[in-house]
Amino acid sequence: MAVPLLDRRDLDFLLFDWLRIESLLACPYYAGHTRDTVTAVLDLSERLATGAFLPALKPSDRYEPRLTPDGVELAPEVVAAVRQYAQAGLLAGPFAQSVEGMQLPHLLHDASLAYCMAASLATAAYPMLTIANARLLVAFGSAAQVAAFALPQIRGEALGTMCLSEPQAGSSLADIRTLAVPDGEDALGARYRLHGHKMWISAGDHDITRDIVHLVLARTPDASGVPLPGIGGISLFVVPKWLPDGTRNDIAVAGLNHKMGYRGTSNCLLNFGEGLHAPSGAAGALGWRVGNAGEGLAQMFHMMNEARTGVGLGAAAAGCRGHLLSVDYARSRVQGRVTCGDGTQRPAAIIEHADVKRMLLAQKAYAEGALALVLYAARLLDEQQTGDAKQAAYTGRLLDLLTPAVKTWPSEYGLAANDLAIQIHGGYGYTRDYDVEQLYRDNRLNPIHEGTTGIQALDLLGRKLLRDRGAALADLRIRVDATVAASRLQPALAVHAAQLDATWAHVGQVVEALTASDGPDILDDATLVLWSFGHAVVAWLWLDMACLCTEGTPFHRGKRAAARYFFEYELPKVAAWLDQAAARSDLLASTTPDDFHP
Amino acid sequence: MAVPLLDRRDLDFLLFDWLRIESLLACPYYAGHTRDTVTAVLDLSERLATGAFLPALKPSDRYEPRLTPDGVELAPEVVAAVRQYAQAGLLAGPFAQSVEGMQLPHLLHDASLAYCMAASLATAAYPMLTIANARLLVAFGSAAQVAAFALPQIRGEALGTMCLSEPQAGSSLADIRTLAVPDGEDALGARYRLHGHKMWISAGDHDITRDIVHLVLARTPDASGVPLPGIGGISLFVVPKWLPDGTRNDIAVAGLNHKMGYRGTSNCLLNFGEGLHAPSGAAGALGWRVGNAGEGLAQMFHMMNEARTGVGLGAAAAGCRGHLLSVDYARSRVQGRVTCGDGTQRPAAIIEHADVKRMLLAQKAYAEGALALVLYAARLLDEQQTGDAKQAAYTGRLLDLLTPAVKTWPSEYGLAANDLAIQIHGGYGYTRDYDVEQLYRDNRLNPIHEGTTGIQALDLLGRKLLRDRGAALADLRIRVDATVAASRLQPALAVHAAQLDATWAHVGQVVEALTASDGPDILDDATLVLWSFGHAVVAWLWLDMACLCTEGTPFHRGKRAAARYFFEYELPKVAAWLDQAAARSDLLASTTPDDFHP
Repeated sequence: MAVPLLDRRDLDFLLFDWLRIESLLACPYYAGHTRDTVTAVLDLSERLATGAFLPALKPSDRYEPRLTPDGVELAPEVVAAVRQYAQAGLLAGPFAQSVEGMQLPHLLHDASLAYCMAASLATAAYPMLTIANARLLVAFGSAAQVAAFALPQIRGEALGTMCLSEPQAGSSLADIRTLAVPDGEDALGARYRLHGHKMWISAGDHDITRDIVHLVLARTPDASGVPLPGIGGISLFVVPKWLPDGTRNDIAVAGLNHKMGYRGTSNCLLNFGEGLHAPSGAAGALGWRVGNAGEGLAQMFHMMNEARTGVGLGAAAAGCRGHLLSVDYARSRVQGRVTCGDGTQRPAAIIEHADVKRMLLAQKAYAEGALALVLYAARLLDEQQTGDAKQAAYTGRLLDLLTPAVKTWPSEYGLAANDLAIQIHGGYGYTRDYDVEQLYRDNRLNPIHEGTTGIQALDLLGRKLLRDRGAALADLRIRVDATVAASRLQPALAVHAAQLDATWAHVGQVVEALTASDGPDILDDATLVLWSFGHAVVAWLWLDMACLCTEGTPFHRGKRAAARYFFEYELPKVAAWLDQAAARSDLLASTTPDDFHP
Repeated sequence: MAVPLLDRRDLDFLLFDWLRIESLLACPYYAGHTRDTVTAVLDLSERLATGAFLPALKPSDRYEPRLTPDGVELAPEVVAAVRQYAQAGLLAGPFAQSVEGMQLPHLLHDASLAYCMAASLATAAYPMLTIANARLLVAFGSAAQVAAFALPQIRGEALGTMCLSEPQAGSSLADIRTLAVPDGEDALGARYRLHGHKMWISAGDHDITRDIVHLVLARTPDASGVPLPGIGGISLFVVPKWLPDGTRNDIAVAGLNHKMGYRGTSNCLLNFGEGLHAPSGAAGALGWRVGNAGEGLAQMFHMMNEARTGVGLGAAAAGCRGHLLSVDYARSRVQGRVTCGDGTQRPAAIIEHADVKRMLLAQKAYAEGALALVLYAARLLDEQQTGDAKQAAYTGRLLDLLTPAVKTWPSEYGLAANDLAIQIHGGYGYTRDYDVEQLYRDNRLNPIHEGTTGIQALDLLGRKLLRDRGAALADLRIRVDATVAASRLQPALAVHAAQLDATWAHVGQVVEALTASDGPDILDDATLVLWSFGHAVVAWLWLDMACLCTEGTPFHRGKRAAARYFFEYELPKVAAWLDQAAARSDLLASTTPDDFHP
């Protein structure tokens, strides 16, 4: 039997037992969806992922996107998979019925997308980016812009991109230079001519759909033509490959990036307005401003929680698939011996060796823990729709606080799980005959894009903890305390409850000390705080899930073992990180570039 | 200026200042070699590595070895580099003059080879394997075998392989099935016909040299033709591709493995004796037994310290090169801002950002620490040649104890350094336009081959600590204590001295407790012991080196900063690992294969 892409029993556990999706579906916004909807969407997603996305996995890696005179060509399996996804109507999943969406909870949509991501991260990037693009348009675009540019994406007739980075501006988006010069106004709003270079544009060109809708951050000029400086000078523009009048817009693929993994997602340097095409008789890519001038970065950040959750989701899904492949391999690979009850030895499958079990438990704790974290965040997103404004504000704060961890923890530990998958497969895992080395290569992008780990750490410590003076952390602590109280009642979990309580107390102390502290180097060890916070959050979720696993079935025993692994082998590291963060070492501040010889 | 492959100032520091190679050269065995020899060999190696091995790096990855009717074809740059290495006479480096060797210290030979490994691990594998092969022949072969098979390798006329693994026997060599049937005797010794499949044979075929000398582990039959069971049934055979009479031996390349990295090293499934050729008119590969029957595995293990040190060396070298590339990139990449003394902000190279400094210091601590560890081990090997039998026995025990860490620590942390190199390069590091993603892919093999991390952990805890009842550990502790005493005298290092002392006391307590303990699961957490031991050893070496870095030059300041990083950010993890190892958790033993659902 083929190894499943994801453990359906786990998804059912997460959605129904743990995150109680049915209570969510009881809200008016989700009226019409039932347990049957959930089952049907997951069934469809698994079939689609297995039948169309998995067959694209290897071709997406072997036959990289190629630049031809007609544009970028993908491996045909990638094209076919994304088209099937669109035809199945799944691009409409998370959107409101008012824009032809299915109005599914993010929780269900993410579980659905996780199947496709587990099969091929690079292929699943196309729908993910399209949904992110259409969401921004729905949130900030005019009715005419939504009709012209969002609906075609929701219907699956066009795909979308996010054009943020430039060659000289990656993490530092405030430094972008692409210029948008006013060019009148029409039914689609304020029109501009764009000129500039956009780097790292995933899905920037391809042969899946004819049209591609680019959302582009660019700077506008002041009255005298000088680019407005700073963040306030940046606006968001919708710039389609094909203009409404049927002519080509002035966008050129200047080159493709050739990556370590994630190869099936074309990754382009796009030149806007270099004059390759002359829409309406002039050089300059035509685009329409989305929302107010000067709010481009704020709009992007408004959608950041969802985009970053999406990165975490892919990383978790790839981690989970690597785990299932590893379990399957470890069950079938016979190597070495174990001692029987009578003292004799017999050949053993490697799953019987302690160190392989350790690696499998670590993988399970990482990958399933990451998936739980992302889906927990998805449920918080859904709680924005339940109609209770106070509840929405409260969960919104929680989500803001958790997002750096929701992006980073799966990216680092889904990857660590894939690294263990290679190790468990031994020499075979290092070959391209198996999937695990590609899972690692694909997943390695995730700690980099949508804000590196270092950027997330500054966001967590600087904005979400210190500037907030621990308010959201106190909210979160109430939820953690509830889990501590519940798990204390189960003898097998009581020791973990105490450990979790102590860990969170330690987190609180360090945040309090840093809040009361000062100095230019206050953020120097932000990454240690992010690591600690991520581990503390995942430990909390593992314990919360373990509370429900009381039946002694293999599934419940496995969940409890993974939780126990996390508490015994992983959580003790947090104290070391926190102590170092609290020590306010001057090592980083006092080290100069010259110290790195030669 | 191009980024150097290795920091020559660091090599000079390690060889001259820290490991006092001149005191080694004063021994009679190394007579004739001086400081000038060291300088000349390093100069030559750097030129060769820069001029021939580095140009092979990308081609070795892009143009994988291809199987043609005439055998395996490599990228021409790989062929050229290895031929230049041979022509430079470097294959003779570590051999005694009695076999036409240069009688260089391992310490110098390893520093030399490190240059080539830093340039291209996959290309450097050919000389490394050849030297390992010739060493075994010199140690155990007859004079006629040495003349026929070792000297051509030492002269660079033939290359060698080690044929150990089989498809069903990787980590578990006791389970090999290749059969060697007696076929008379001739001037080269007891002759056999070999039949079987050998998997993962690096350099198993290629177009660098005409002849290839295979050393093959195989099982011999008893008088009635039944294969002798167990380890005692395994002998070592020398099996050349071309026989002394000029005919082809019965060895066929059945297939090539396509790897994640290390692609330039052809990796073959070799079929011995399948009848493709019929040497002396019959099927079966002709080979000659090396040394005594039944001692094949023991002979291999005799050479294990050197082979495993070689793996650690390559991993360290790749880590060091990634570090130098990262420093260079971080100095030139401008992104974000730093605050000036007057409160204004200015654009900054990323090397000025705290988190990038943290990653660079971590890299430096990992990569340079790994190189120091491997070269320390090389010096212990050289001390076997100093003529003092008692000293040789003492350092031999130390080397046996250290070897699992010398193999594993650089493999895991050289790799971790390369992973950080990708992260520091950001999106650019994820592309194949830069070298760092390839360094990671190449280096990922090292925790797998020559004994996985799990196998090394069993060796360390089972053989080197428990069976030894801590005797070698006590010897090592004397050296550690000397470093503690010396560093205590320097105020800036006193806090590290206390931390090192406490860490080694903790290691000692846990080993003592485990030695006094019992039970079938005593080795379950062996990997945690290996991690702890590796960190404790590397911390010791960092402190030992830091003692010498008193001058306040950028080089010395950098070394001290890296040492401090290791003590502040890394060493505290050891207590968590040791506590868990000491806890004798039953988690791994009580987890069953069924718990890994589905």
